[in-house]
Amino acid sequence: MRATVMYGAGDVRLETLPDPQLSTGDDAIVRVVAACVCGSDLWPFRGVTSVTAPRQVGHEFVGVVEQIGRGVGVVKPGDFVIAPFYVCDGTCVHCRNGVSTSCVNGSWWGSPDRKGVSADGGQGEFVRVPLADGTLFPIGVTPDPAMIPGLATLSDVLCTGHHAAVSAGVRPGSVVAVVGDGAVGLCAVLAARRLGAAKDDCDVQASGPAGDGAGVRGHGHHCRPGRCRVAAVHRLTGGIGTDCVLERVGTQQSMQQALGSARPGGQIGFVGLPNGGPELPINQLFDSNVGVRGGIAPVRDYMADLLPDVLTGAITPGRVFDLQLPLTEIVEAYSAMDQRRAIKALLVL
Amino acid sequence: MRATVMYGAGDVRLETLPDPQLSTGDDAIVRVVAACVCGSDLWPFRGVTSVTAPRQVGHEFVGVVEQIGRGVGVVKPGDFVIAPFYVCDGTCVHCRNGVSTSCVNGSWWGSPDRKGVSADGGQGEFVRVPLADGTLFPIGVTPDPAMIPGLATLSDVLCTGHHAAVSAGVRPGSVVAVVGDGAVGLCAVLAARRLGAAKDDCDVQASGPAGDGAGVRGHGHHCRPGRCRVAAVHRLTGGIGTDCVLERVGTQQSMQQALGSARPGGQIGFVGLPNGGPELPINQLFDSNVGVRGGIAPVRDYMADLLPDVLTGAITPGRVFDLQLPLTEIVEAYSAMDQRRAIKALLVL
Repeated sequence: MRATVMYGAGDVRLETLPDPQLSTGDDAIVRVVAACVCGSDLWPFRGVTSVTAPRQVGHEFVGVVEQIGRGVGVVKPGDFVIAPFYVCDGTCVHCRNGVSTSCVNGSWWGSPDRKGVSADGGQGEFVRVPLADGTLFPIGVTPDPAMIPGLATLSDVLCTGHHAAVSAGVRPGSVVAVVGDGAVGLCAVLAARRLGAAKDDCDVQASGPAGDGAGVRGHGHHCRPGRCRVAAVHRLTGGIGTDCVLERVGTQQSMQQALGSARPGGQIGFVGLPNGGPELPINQLFDSNVGVRGGIAPVRDYMADLLPDVLTGAITPGRVFDLQLPLTEIVEAYSAMDQRRAIKALLVL
Repeated sequence: MRATVMYGAGDVRLETLPDPQLSTGDDAIVRVVAACVCGSDLWPFRGVTSVTAPRQVGHEFVGVVEQIGRGVGVVKPGDFVIAPFYVCDGTCVHCRNGVSTSCVNGSWWGSPDRKGVSADGGQGEFVRVPLADGTLFPIGVTPDPAMIPGLATLSDVLCTGHHAAVSAGVRPGSVVAVVGDGAVGLCAVLAARRLGAAKDDCDVQASGPAGDGAGVRGHGHHCRPGRCRVAAVHRLTGGIGTDCVLERVGTQQSMQQALGSARPGGQIGFVGLPNGGPELPINQLFDSNVGVRGGIAPVRDYMADLLPDVLTGAITPGRVFDLQLPLTEIVEAYSAMDQRRAIKALLVL
């Protein structure tokens, strides 16, 4: 099969590799229909993280089950499935608690599974999926090709945006600010509106340097420093601050922007991978009673809730993909995102 | 009147001062029936915080309204009232949001109010109470003297323990750990049980060096290092960790103990004033999806909810006072707490 291998900074290649084989009994082989490039894929591509040895990459994909191991009982050949960005068994105590990212048997794409067998990355033609019954989410229908982008967002960005909204406690009438207007930030706006966030002219906002790819409105206020944006939030809320802040950037500046935007007693839902910033200022939290909750999103747990609204078109998260390419154009997909010519690229196989 | 004045480290005195006078129209004069010594009163007494000028101290008290200003409409002379440890108007947006500690017109006992008039401390015979209608909570009955200790805990420690439990999301069946077994920690145990925390042998625990003053069980496990306690929590929960952790100490070690005790996706409710420790480790929060919420407790907002259970004896938080003294023994009250001969002292006038 053809699959994407990361060699190091600026060096990602589509290579021909052996087709994956069933090996552990609880696994499945999935033929990939579409795969995404994630912002975190850019870290090794940009040299932010080092690559000690070439490895298969990609961790957001949808596809069709081709084969199943003898221990697989839920997923069937022919099922159209969504893969979360991690492997989980769906049965351990943490999975039952809705935190499948902490699965006691969990692992990661492109890494050895719990039995030590390497799992493929998602940016390829086929993937061996460990713990297939827990990991894969069969959507129950054969989707129209036009639905594929929206379904692909369930693999990560839509569910991650939803996790920010859930963690921030968004409910009907909540006044919400969103920090970050990349793909997850835009999905966070959709998720907040879906949960009933207020729809006044100033209520749901994505602030950040990037554009407005999901068709949701930016905030029309483009000065970059965090303080300026905090001032704008306070101006728009009569000096009160917002009930909820969805933070998906992960820098010191973005978290300070979130903390400064929340009203006393407000709540920050954060999904931005902490990126070298300092730790959370606990005195500020103490004085303001602003809560912080979030982290790596247990996206597998949210798929069943979000799928119907994607299938009916009630929400159109597929619009975050402002670049669609064939797998053969994987280098251009990385380059376009690296150079900020695209918010998020979808590879269609 | 006689009132307590803090002069500096180790130097607290009962002095004769002019009786307070109504001055702002929205204030009231309260005759103090009982007042508490708070752990935070020990900071200047121990020299942890400096005293730049002698000042009246005390911020937890109950009493009877003697006079009201012409702008006071809710509180009436003769009412038995509970004072929160701060002043609030009860009407601003933050008060309406249940965060009266962030009242836009709020102030603190022993400090100038919003009109610049000094308010008395609570450890004296009388107190001028600014914004009396918002600040004071009339209990609606004339209490039996035996009820006074329990009612005095509504001024701070019971409501603060409850804030920890609410912030940690304690609900029926929650498995809860409590870090800290001082007066607030013991009240946090009561509050958690009241909200339905599981009652198995290992479920609600207070861990700390002090005793078991509220009559609730300690954890029978007295090694002090945080890591040891975390190991004990994991042993008691089958390696999972607890749903909720109530943190009321405020040190680096106690917060690490809390973070280490929570299960993935768990929630920490913290009410310990951050005490020089480092900031919250955001990577640990991100990886575990453990949330953190809490801060300075909006105790005024909780009084109406908690009062009935105190009046009926359903909970007996007054047992946290293991020392009761007349106001004339104020120096001994401070000394006993400073020397850890008492968990919490009540001054009965």
